[in-house]
Amino acid sequence: MSDHVYKKLELVGSSTVSSDDAARNAIAQAQATIRNMDWFEVVDTRGHIVDGKVAHWQVTVKIGFRLES
Amino acid sequence: MSDHVYKKLELVGSSTVSSDDAARNAIAQAQATIRNMDWFEVVDTRGHIVDGKVAHWQVTVKIGFRLES
Amino acid sequence: MSDHVYKKLELVGSSTVSSDDAARNAIAQAQATIRNMDWFEVVDTRGHIVDGKVAHWQVTVKIGFRLES
Amino acid sequence: MSDHVYKKLELVGSSTVSSDDAARNAIAQAQATIRNMDWFEVVDTRGHIVDGKVAHWQVTVKIGFRLES
Amino acid sequence: MSDHVYKKLELVGSSTVSSDDAARNAIAQAQATIRNMDWFEVVDTRGHIVDGKVAHWQVTVKIGFRLES
Amino acid sequence: MSDHVYKKLELVGSSTVSSDDAARNAIAQAQATIRNMDWFEVVDTRGHIVDGKVAHWQVTVKIGFRLES
Amino acid sequence: MSDHVYKKLELVGSSTVSSDDAARNAIAQAQATIRNMDWFEVVDTRGHIVDGKVAHWQVTVKIGFRLES
Amino acid sequence: MSDHVYKKLELVGSSTVSSDDAARNAIAQAQATIRNMDWFEVVDTRGHIVDGKVAHWQVTVKIGFRLES
Amino acid sequence: MSDHVYKKLELVGSSTVSSDDAARNAIAQAQATIRNMDWFEVVDTRGHIVDGKVAHWQVTVKIGFRLES
Amino acid sequence: MSDHVYKKLELVGSSTVSSDDAARNAIAQAQATIRNMDWFEVVDTRGHIVDGKVAHWQVTVKIGFRLES
Amino acid sequence: MSDHVYKKLELVGSSTVSSDDAARNAIAQAQATIRNMDWFEVVDTRGHIVDGKVAHWQVTVKIGFRLES
Amino acid sequence: MSDHVYKKLELVGSSTVSSDDAARNAIAQAQATIRNMDWFEVVDTRGHIVDGKVAHWQVTVKIGFRLES
Repeated sequence: MSDHVYKKLELVGSSTVSSDDAARNAIAQAQATIRNMDWFEVVDTRGHIVDGKVAHWQVTVKIGFRLES
Repeated sequence: MSDHVYKKLELVGSSTVSSDDAARNAIAQAQATIRNMDWFEVVDTRGHIVDGKVAHWQVTVKIGFRLES
Repeated sequence: MSDHVYKKLELVGSSTVSSDDAARNAIAQAQATIRNMDWFEVVDTRGHIVDGKVAHWQVTVKIGFRLES
Repeated sequence: MSDHVYKKLELVGSSTVSSDDAARNAIAQAQATIRNMDWFEVVDTRGHIVDGKVAHWQVTVKIGFRLES
Repeated sequence: MSDHVYKKLELVGSSTVSSDDAARNAIAQAQATIRNMDWFEVVDTRGHIVDGKVAHWQVTVKIGFRLES
Repeated sequence: MSDHVYKKLELVGSSTVSSDDAARNAIAQAQATIRNMDWFEVVDTRGHIVDGKVAHWQVTVKIGFRLES
Repeated sequence: MSDHVYKKLELVGSSTVSSDDAARNAIAQAQATIRNMDWFEVVDTRGHIVDGKVAHWQVTVKIGFRLES
Repeated sequence: MSDHVYKKLELVGSSTVSSDDAARNAIAQAQATIRNMDWFEVVDTRGHIVDGKVAHWQVTVKIGFRLES
Repeated sequence: MSDHVYKKLELVGSSTVSSDDAARNAIAQAQATIRNMDWFEVVDTRGHIVDGKVAHWQVTVKIGFRLES
Repeated sequence: MSDHVYKKLELVGSSTVSSDDAARNAIAQAQATIRNMDWFEVVDTRGHIVDGKVAHWQVTVKIGFRLES
Repeated sequence: MSDHVYKKLELVGSSTVSSDDAARNAIAQAQATIRNMDWFEVVDTRGHIVDGKVAHWQVTVKIGFRLES
Repeated sequence: MSDHVYKKLELVGSSTVSSDDAARNAIAQAQATIRNMDWFEVVDTRGHIVDGKVAHWQVTVKIGFRLES
C-alpha cells in the first residue's frame, strides 16, 4: 500500500435534509466520474436560510482517491 | 445585489436530538427578531454528557442577514 | 484611554469595483447607526462570478467602536 | 465548582449511520472506564468510502471529565 | 437546559493593571445592558506601550448570554 | 438549488497592477475551460519584489463551479 | 537528553482568583499522580460569569512529562 | 512572469523510507501527466503503524504548475 | 539557488489610498536599508476609521530577502 | 471496522539523527505499553541548538490506537 | 499617522511571578535598544515546571515599533 | 533562567538533499552572526520542482536565541 499516490478533490454538496446528506450527495456525484475513492474529510458546514428556516445544507468535503499508476 | 451589506450574528443553539437540530434551533430563535436572514456557517460543535450519554448538542453558528438601507 | 471598552461588529460589504471598496461600503453602512467607530479588521475576501468575471467582491470586516459608559 | 480540574481525552468514534452517531459511539466506549464525563467537543469529521458510498463516519471528539481530588 | 439559545458578543476591555483585569472590565461594561451572561472566552491579548512600559492591556473576549425566549 | 454539487479549484493569478487584478486574472484564465463558475474565495496574497518594488502580485483563489449532473 | 520521550496531557484548571492561578491548579492536581513534569502550554482561556462578574477562570493547559524508559 | 496563472493540485504520496520520500513519490506520480510543475508545499505528515513501527509515511503536498495560455 | 538562506522581516505599512498601497509603502521603507528583497506575503489587513470613513489602511507584510553569505 | 473506537495519544520524541527518527522514537516508546497502534500524525517539529548546530530534533506526534471493547 | 511604517519584533520574556510579568520583562529588555515602541501582541503562553510547580512563565510577544524615516 | 529574554528570528533555508538539511542550513548561516542560539521551530516546508523532481527543499524556521542583558 505504501506505493500508492492519492489525489484530493474539493467538492461542495448540498441537501435539504441534513448536513450528513449534503456530504453524501457530493460523494455520490463524484462517484459518476471518479474511481477508487477511499476517504473524505469534512472541511466546512454552512447553508442558506429561507423564511427563517434552513433551506439547504452546504457541506464542503475533500475526497481522496487512489491514482492508477 | 452588489450594494447590499450583511451583518453576522453569532449564536449557540442546543438540542437533545442532533447537531443539525441544534443549528436549526439557533436559527428559529433568531427568526423571532431578525428579518432577511440569508445564510449560516457552523463554527463549532460540542455538547454536554450526562450519565455517559450526550444530553444535548451545542452548535455555534454565525448567521448572515441583510441590513436594510 | 485605558478605561474604554470596545465592541466588535462583523459585517459583509460588497462592491462591483474592488475589494477595498467592499470594505468601505460595509463601514459606510455601519456609520448610519453606530457612533465612535475606531478601527476595522479584514476577516475574509470572496465574491461572486457571473459570465466568467468578478460580478462583485464580498469582504467581511470586523468593526471596533467605543461603547459609551 | 471553581476548584475542579478536568482532563481532556481525544477519541475517534465511528458509525455506519451518521456523524452524530460516531461521536455518540466514542462517548459510549469511554463510559466503560471513565467516570464524571462532563462535555465533548467535535474536533474533526471524516470517513471511509466504499463503492462510492460513505461506508462509515469517523468523528474525533475531545471528552472532558472531572478528576477526583 | 437543552432548549436555550445563547448569543455571543465580542468586546475589547482594557486595563492599566493586568490582562485579567482588562477582561473583567469588558464584562463589567456588558453587565450594564446585558442580562443572563453565562460565560466568556479570551480571544486575543495585546496592549499599548508608552515610554517602554505596558501602558494598558487590551483583551478581546467573547461573552455568551442566554436569549430569553 | 439544493441538489447541486460544486467543485472547488485552487488557482494562483498574478498581476503587475494590483492584488484584485491578480485574482481577476486567475478567474479569466479559468473561464477558458470551466463553465458555470459561481464564486471565488481569496486564500492567500503575496508577490515578488524586484529593485525594491512590487514586481507583481500573486493571489491564490479557490473558485467554485457547478458540476453538471 | 535526545533519547527522552515525553507525553502531553491536556487538563482544564479553574480558579476564582486569576487565569494564572487556574493553570497552576491544573498543574498542582497533575502533580499528585504524574512524575517528571517538565513544561506546560496554555491552550485556551475562558470562564463562567455569575451576576455579571467572573465567577471563575478556566484555563486549558497541555502538560509535558518525561516517560521513564 | 506576471501574466502566468498557476493551478494547485493536492496529492498524498507514501513511502516506507522517509517523509521526504513520500513527498517525492507524489511529485513523481504527478510528473506522468502534468507539465510545467513549479513548486510544492507540504500540508500534512502522517502515516500508518504496523507492529509498533512506521509501516509507511503519508505526506500531503500541494503542487503548483503553470497553466498554458 | 539551493544554497541561499533568506530572512523574513515583519512590517506594517499604512496608506490613505488603498490596502495595496499600504503594502507597497512597507516595502518602499524596507528598501532604504535592506538589499536583495525577493518576495512578500500579506499577513493581515486592517485600518483606522475616522468620521465613519477609512482614514488609513494598515497592512502587515512579511518580506523575504536573501542573506549574503 | 465501523464499530471501532480509537484513542489518540500525544507524544514528543527526540533524535540526534533526523526529524523522521524523532517520530519513530516516540512510536517505539509507545509500543512498550500500547497495543493496536494504527496511525500517527505529525503535529509539530522543533529542536534544540547547541554550538550553532541541531543537537536533537523534537517531533510531536499524535498516535491513534484501537481500544479493545 | 498614515505614512508611518512599523516593524514587528518577536520576543520571549520569562518571569517567576506571572504571565503578565513575563510579557512586561520582554518589553523592558527591548526598551534598552528599541525606540518608538507602540504596541504588543501576546502570541503564546507556556512555562517550565519544577517539582510540580510553575518555575517560570514564558510568554512570546510581538512588539511593534515605528521606523524612523 | 527565568530572567532571560529570547528573540525569535525567521529564516528560510534550502537544500538539494532533504528537508532536515534545509533547516540545518538556515541555522548554520545564522551561526555566523548570532550568538546564544537555543532552539528552532519548523514553520513551513515547501520547495521547487525542476523537470518533475524536487530541485531543492525550502524550510522556514524560527530560531530562538538569548539576548545578552
